[in-house]
Amino acid sequence: MATFLILGAGMMGSALAVPIADRGHEVRLVGSPLDEEIVEAVRATGVHPRLGLQLPSTIRALSHRELDGAAQNVDAVAFGVSSAGIEWAARAIAPHMRSDLPLFMITKGLIFEDGRLVCLPDAVAARMPAAIRSSVHPAAIAGPCIAGEIARKVPTCVVLAGRDAGVLEVIREQITTPYYRPVPTTDLVGAEVCAALKNAYAMGIAFATGMHERAGGTLGSIAMHNLESAVMAQAVLEMQQIVVRLGGKASTASGLAGVGDLDVTTNGGRTGRFGKWLGMGLDRAQAIEKMQGATLECLEILTVMRTALDAGAIPGRSLQSFPLLEHMIHVALDDRPVEVPIAQFFQPDLTADLAS
Amino acid sequence: MATFLILGAGMMGSALAVPIADRGHEVRLVGSPLDEEIVEAVRATGVHPRLGLQLPSTIRALSHRELDGAAQNVDAVAFGVSSAGIEWAARAIAPHMRSDLPLFMITKGLIFEDGRLVCLPDAVAARMPAAIRSSVHPAAIAGPCIAGEIARKVPTCVVLAGRDAGVLEVIREQITTPYYRPVPTTDLVGAEVCAALKNAYAMGIAFATGMHERAGGTLGSIAMHNLESAVMAQAVLEMQQIVVRLGGKASTASGLAGVGDLDVTTNGGRTGRFGKWLGMGLDRAQAIEKMQGATLECLEILTVMRTALDAGAIPGRSLQSFPLLEHMIHVALDDRPVEVPIAQFFQPDLTADLAS
Repeated sequence: MATFLILGAGMMGSALAVPIADRGHEVRLVGSPLDEEIVEAVRATGVHPRLGLQLPSTIRALSHRELDGAAQNVDAVAFGVSSAGIEWAARAIAPHMRSDLPLFMITKGLIFEDGRLVCLPDAVAARMPAAIRSSVHPAAIAGPCIAGEIARKVPTCVVLAGRDAGVLEVIREQITTPYYRPVPTTDLVGAEVCAALKNAYAMGIAFATGMHERAGGTLGSIAMHNLESAVMAQAVLEMQQIVVRLGGKASTASGLAGVGDLDVTTNGGRTGRFGKWLGMGLDRAQAIEKMQGATLECLEILTVMRTALDAGAIPGRSLQSFPLLEHMIHVALDDRPVEVPIAQFFQPDLTADLAS
Repeated sequence: MATFLILGAGMMGSALAVPIADRGHEVRLVGSPLDEEIVEAVRATGVHPRLGLQLPSTIRALSHRELDGAAQNVDAVAFGVSSAGIEWAARAIAPHMRSDLPLFMITKGLIFEDGRLVCLPDAVAARMPAAIRSSVHPAAIAGPCIAGEIARKVPTCVVLAGRDAGVLEVIREQITTPYYRPVPTTDLVGAEVCAALKNAYAMGIAFATGMHERAGGTLGSIAMHNLESAVMAQAVLEMQQIVVRLGGKASTASGLAGVGDLDVTTNGGRTGRFGKWLGMGLDRAQAIEKMQGATLECLEILTVMRTALDAGAIPGRSLQSFPLLEHMIHVALDDRPVEVPIAQFFQPDLTADLAS
């Protein structure tokens, strides 16, 4: 059995620890500086306060101050932090990193750096010590993985994406359980671009639910399901175009990392609830207030995408090329009302070169 | 303005009549022999009893006995019957058909005929008089179109698929409204295969909701969303494979006809409710009983697919190539329990040749 070091003891990192512990591995779950209360609670009671359940006893919760010891003699490292914690995690692991140490992350995001869109695994690799930088190939997990469900062993399949197929196979073999099935792919760019974009697009898909409620409708067979599904199909099309133009594969966006994560985020995620409030007619500030301080990744990724498209970071495309993305930016960042531009959906310039 | 003849006065045919009438066309809505009561009710009150709403006064409801007169001097013909009504509609229109008369249908289905899978537009063309058979190219509408929502003008985009791009453009121009936007595609096979298969796959996607309820869960963020979304992604993958092997395009299955219709059918359709009952542990007979006599297209298409795959109608593939389809057949036709085979999902033989 192996020893896993997980950085980040919030919901995501701790949920990831569950299948790994279930496979019989030792898990050292090291909290970020923001996770001190969680670490103390898990140590005192065994119960993770945010997940609301008992963690397996083979998961050892540790403070970030104990990292130096915890990082000794580990067989694999995983980042379970949110995107806000990625700088801490990269800095924290850098002194302990070796080129033969598998590193993977469930942190999702896309950043605009040096004039181009960079996915988080590449951003993390760039933050490793110069001597090993070119030989560290962090992998990433994408696809449907609501933390509270993984911790409760609800079955799912996820994508395990990375540039080194050999490393992927080692990780896959070690963390697979009957209820948690990572599927390897070398389309790292495709998987990570989808993982980031889905937070934005899930917001747009959820507009329809809010519009229906605003019109006085209730849950039922007749609602605005047609509109919701048309938006979802346009979301997949725009994601495919963005992925392909950044060097990934269209099939990644129609798979677990795209369609799968889009569906789960719309139905079970924060972003879906935020989109519903906007669809109900709340303005930006009111909708943010309704979310009671929850992190809204959709606002981050929409800001990044506007900056990147304005800077020409997606070859041959402008923001106007993606009418749904453009509308979501206008609603969520510029405080304009929701008016889904279906007349601009599925135009030949977007559909033509994917028509294979 | 043009004159449209719609065959079938049930929910689908009558809903289709709404945007067409809204564009100012004359609509002759001719019921099938099973629609006599509906036709009488619409004539007497203007209200469609199944849709539960007033139809525009420019829609004229007619009995099937009035077809010969109604078919004179029309500019386009549409089939709005269910798949069970397709033989009647084809026979009824045959004597009136001309090679320059646009024909399109919202009827969905796939039949196994002469050793191969045939989509309904091709089956209808084969039933036209010999003199015009080769020059009639029926088009078909697929994608998210719950009838009750279209009749209430809930916005949506649909696919308008056919082999003659010129005919598609004529129809598209005539029936487009701000809330009903057909998107033309010449991938007729892809659109129709998706339109048929989505009824089966929506059943499988809905298993997870039933499993969650069976386990005592309630609606909420933590349910079996991960599983539902993983099944949805596998459904799209299997649909892409089947479409491509039958000569269609993978992008059709990730678009409105595939992802879009799959989503709407899971959330708003009968098939989703049926899948939920099966996921709750009801056996086949109990689940069918719960549906109170509703047409279950999923049972038809699962039967067709088993027959076709057993007969080798999908080149290079057997039923075992599609683990989700195989499991759904076992559950819905063979009365086996739901045990979603996620360990067999996303295997390289299915993902490899779509990896573009």
